[in-house]
Amino acid sequence: MAYRAPVSEMVFMMNAAAGLQDGIADGTYADLADGMAEATLNEAAKYAENVLGPLHRVGDQVGSKWKDGVVTTPPGWVDAYKQFVEGGWQSVTGSADHGGMGLPQVLLAGCMDMWSAANMAFMLGPVLTFGAIDALEAHASDEIKHTYLEKMISGVWPATMNLTEPGAGSDLNPLRTRAERQSDGTYKIFGQKIFITYGEHDMSDNIVHLVLARLPDAPAGTKGISLFVVPKFFVNADGSLGARNDVRCAGIEHKLGIHGSPTCIMVYGDEGGATGYLVGEENKGLACMFTMMNDARLATGLQGVAIGEASYQHALAYANERKQGKAAGATTPLSPIIAHPDVKRMLMTMKALTLSARAVAYLTAGVIDRSRRAKDPAARKAAAERAGLMTPIAKGYSSDIGCEVASLGVQVHGGMGFIEETGAAQFMRDARIVPIYEGTNGIQAIDLVTRKLPMNGGAVMKAEIADMRATVEQLRATNDPSFGAMAQRLGEGLDAFERATDWLLGKLGSNVQDALAGATPYLRLFGVMRGGATLGAMALAAHKARAGGDSDPAHAGRIATARFFAENVVVGADGLEATITGAAESVLTADLALAG
Amino acid sequence: MAYRAPVSEMVFMMNAAAGLQDGIADGTYADLADGMAEATLNEAAKYAENVLGPLHRVGDQVGSKWKDGVVTTPPGWVDAYKQFVEGGWQSVTGSADHGGMGLPQVLLAGCMDMWSAANMAFMLGPVLTFGAIDALEAHASDEIKHTYLEKMISGVWPATMNLTEPGAGSDLNPLRTRAERQSDGTYKIFGQKIFITYGEHDMSDNIVHLVLARLPDAPAGTKGISLFVVPKFFVNADGSLGARNDVRCAGIEHKLGIHGSPTCIMVYGDEGGATGYLVGEENKGLACMFTMMNDARLATGLQGVAIGEASYQHALAYANERKQGKAAGATTPLSPIIAHPDVKRMLMTMKALTLSARAVAYLTAGVIDRSRRAKDPAARKAAAERAGLMTPIAKGYSSDIGCEVASLGVQVHGGMGFIEETGAAQFMRDARIVPIYEGTNGIQAIDLVTRKLPMNGGAVMKAEIADMRATVEQLRATNDPSFGAMAQRLGEGLDAFERATDWLLGKLGSNVQDALAGATPYLRLFGVMRGGATLGAMALAAHKARAGGDSDPAHAGRIATARFFAENVVVGADGLEATITGAAESVLTADLALAG
Repeated sequence: MAYRAPVSEMVFMMNAAAGLQDGIADGTYADLADGMAEATLNEAAKYAENVLGPLHRVGDQVGSKWKDGVVTTPPGWVDAYKQFVEGGWQSVTGSADHGGMGLPQVLLAGCMDMWSAANMAFMLGPVLTFGAIDALEAHASDEIKHTYLEKMISGVWPATMNLTEPGAGSDLNPLRTRAERQSDGTYKIFGQKIFITYGEHDMSDNIVHLVLARLPDAPAGTKGISLFVVPKFFVNADGSLGARNDVRCAGIEHKLGIHGSPTCIMVYGDEGGATGYLVGEENKGLACMFTMMNDARLATGLQGVAIGEASYQHALAYANERKQGKAAGATTPLSPIIAHPDVKRMLMTMKALTLSARAVAYLTAGVIDRSRRAKDPAARKAAAERAGLMTPIAKGYSSDIGCEVASLGVQVHGGMGFIEETGAAQFMRDARIVPIYEGTNGIQAIDLVTRKLPMNGGAVMKAEIADMRATVEQLRATNDPSFGAMAQRLGEGLDAFERATDWLLGKLGSNVQDALAGATPYLRLFGVMRGGATLGAMALAAHKARAGGDSDPAHAGRIATARFFAENVVVGADGLEATITGAAESVLTADLALAG
Repeated sequence: MAYRAPVSEMVFMMNAAAGLQDGIADGTYADLADGMAEATLNEAAKYAENVLGPLHRVGDQVGSKWKDGVVTTPPGWVDAYKQFVEGGWQSVTGSADHGGMGLPQVLLAGCMDMWSAANMAFMLGPVLTFGAIDALEAHASDEIKHTYLEKMISGVWPATMNLTEPGAGSDLNPLRTRAERQSDGTYKIFGQKIFITYGEHDMSDNIVHLVLARLPDAPAGTKGISLFVVPKFFVNADGSLGARNDVRCAGIEHKLGIHGSPTCIMVYGDEGGATGYLVGEENKGLACMFTMMNDARLATGLQGVAIGEASYQHALAYANERKQGKAAGATTPLSPIIAHPDVKRMLMTMKALTLSARAVAYLTAGVIDRSRRAKDPAARKAAAERAGLMTPIAKGYSSDIGCEVASLGVQVHGGMGFIEETGAAQFMRDARIVPIYEGTNGIQAIDLVTRKLPMNGGAVMKAEIADMRATVEQLRATNDPSFGAMAQRLGEGLDAFERATDWLLGKLGSNVQDALAGATPYLRLFGVMRGGATLGAMALAAHKARAGGDSDPAHAGRIATARFFAENVVVGADGLEATITGAAESVLTADLALAG
């Protein structure tokens, strides 16, 4: 089953979740007017379906290979990357100053959704380059911008993100990579980095490494970390490539999934020092890196959406083909397994969860766009705060969903799902990294509860709840029987979510440990409610279109999906509330059980 | 981290869940008196820890290999199997008539729990042999018993279970393998079987295949299926081995996990017909196979428990070693990650889920034992019905838990979890088959709802609910503050479960489709409640021991685990109830969404 990009569904969701049409009308998305969004997405879909999709399996089966410092990507990948660059796909969002198209995040989100679904392992390289472009645009000197940005935005020189070391992962305080000032204003970099995605490969003639390191006189901890550009090959004044820098790939990891993506051990400076160029100010590297990571978090969440969609399509096709058992009312002895209620439930769960994650991710992309494009500075500020609130669920909720959906996809296939040739298992293996990298989902939950929730004394979250309640009121008023108990379930869920929110806000002042103990179920509950409410908004849009005479049969499916989600997923809200507000003691007493 | 068998915890659970001590007192478990259970389990633990555990990783990394019909198991496995036979481990439960020890299922459950935790892929062979022994003891002629049983019970000749064909998996109606009567009373077998676990290997000089096939004049469907013994090598009258039978292994599958276990394509009769010997009566093969499968279902559920335990131990060890971030109240900059509340929550979830699954599995083993060993025929009948009720959750709930726990285990490891060398990912890959084989969990749910729930008009389930309520009343009466909200949460959960049960019983008469749509969440809810109530019983036993002056610190951990489960997992009961009783329409409308 080859992946097919659901462009019309994606556009429908962009309207419902990210206000695409509204934004075109009010000028926020002026550059997407006149069908520009659909046209671009349709082109991106062709690249996904025709170029990336056919390389998805070979990427897993052959994988990237390391030998003597050289990394060879799977057969076909070099050419696919060439087409990526030629198609101008890396330049979708970069600034026009350096050759970018400057298109909004919502459009990139749609592209990422498709490209990652077609071939997530391939897309990890471009994802990091997008983030690196943002970091350099925001923080680098004009000279660095001049030297690197155009080549990065065109995709000719992809970039990497070098944070992790063996002793420093989620916590960057113990970071040890060393940077020594040189008399010419450059720095010599010494150290080892691990888990560097596309740290080395054969798809380009240069690679731009962004590396975190510590100056000898730097303050301890994360306040003493600086960011450097360390090119694989030096760049001459005329833009041509010079000598090789003192950086090498010492090996790649043997991983559960994303075999096509080389996860590199990078060694800097073991022949006298790798030359690096400071980005921004000394000791302010973490702020620069966060620019890069924030965008990467949304992109990572979209990988969860993408794997969900791809594994759903794969399982749906199998369930329509595979015949076992006689379904109720069937006239032949063997029915396609989709006819059995339990299989139908699994497929609907896959679809509804995936769409809820897409809703969350697109909504996040939309508010990021408004934080940059809204005319009113106050609107930009409000949108930026909302983007901050949404980012932990865009990453954490969506990536958990990707894993759960891919695991269900294996189950739909029965015994065939466990056989690697079937392909269902690859989705599950690939998906499993997404809740881990770019900040584990536990860290997303801590970020949500301790930094985002208390913004403006909780007012940003309260505004989010009010926004969701407004959708529920519209659902309630609509009185369409096909909506089922959607409004009621969402309303009850929001009540639970608001109680949990108030409880956490109370604890943040008095007992942060209690709040932290409930952080992960709170992230989940926020994701479920935000996803459910936005699916409700999608159902309202479908209802409105239908009432206006639009006979597209997809509208009924949209309503059915939103309803299924409310009646089968949102109903877990009370239970999640209980694990948030009732978690404190059971975590305090955990030591008794974990000791034995 | 090497697996360590938690024998004292297992025995404690055998007492709480399976009434081990009570059974010793009342004679049901007379053969386990005088420390026999502990002594046997301790010996089995040594085999698990010293022999099987060290081969767990090589089994994954090297796997079983196929060449020209010959299957070579991973290095060390032949010797480990020799030790299995020499230790008499295959003979734990077989009848004394053929050299078995005739020990109860609860003891076998403990052994399986340990052996599968240490090396699940290895244990799949013996698991099937246990089932085949039961099938032959129950159904085979004396001649077949005489020829095969002693060798099977000793483990010298392991057995296989040949059901699945490319067109017949969950549904055996379309089964096509052909059996032709011969004048000497034997049969010639022709056909291809797939997914045959240990269908071929190098660990024994003979293999006893149990094969389902259809006679030319057999009725259509499953009422026309017969069971045959088809030995790899013929057995001479003196018990020595003769010529090779016409059966061969045409290949093995490339799977997501359990690489050590060869999953074989078996071809019968392509050189004139494989000779088979009828087990039981013609066309009654399915009943024979069900004897085999019932035991296999419990054994499969125990694999879920086992992987849960092994991955929990692995993650716990890592969380105690790995240092990142400063925990609240810590005096050094880096704390072991177990000190962070979110990691603590993950580990407690792993532990509590695993113990709930163990509770369900051991309880099931206990009632199976009573169905065979109770003095009173009425008690045996009641226990048999209860075993029937429990088997779907022993398999379905426990195997889902195994997957969820193993996935959490990867998450606890962070980025290291995704690296295959760490070992966390193997548990996740191995575990993923368990919800699929021996009847998918969807089929377990259908069995529970359509066949087990309506037994005696629902009275068997009602008795189960009453049993759980009795535990809750004891918890309520105990008034120990360390129990937290355990009684309340379990009581509320049972209310939800009973409402869902009544709703389903009502639908079974009028609208089976509605009931089927809620089957999977109902199985989950039953598993959660039965697991939670039995953990409550375990907590009561710990409380009683402590009140009696037993200062074992493990008691506090047992209570904390039961409490955590009630306050963090059982609280989801209302949500599950809603997905059962509110699922009908959202599944009916699913077609609208799944079409697009």
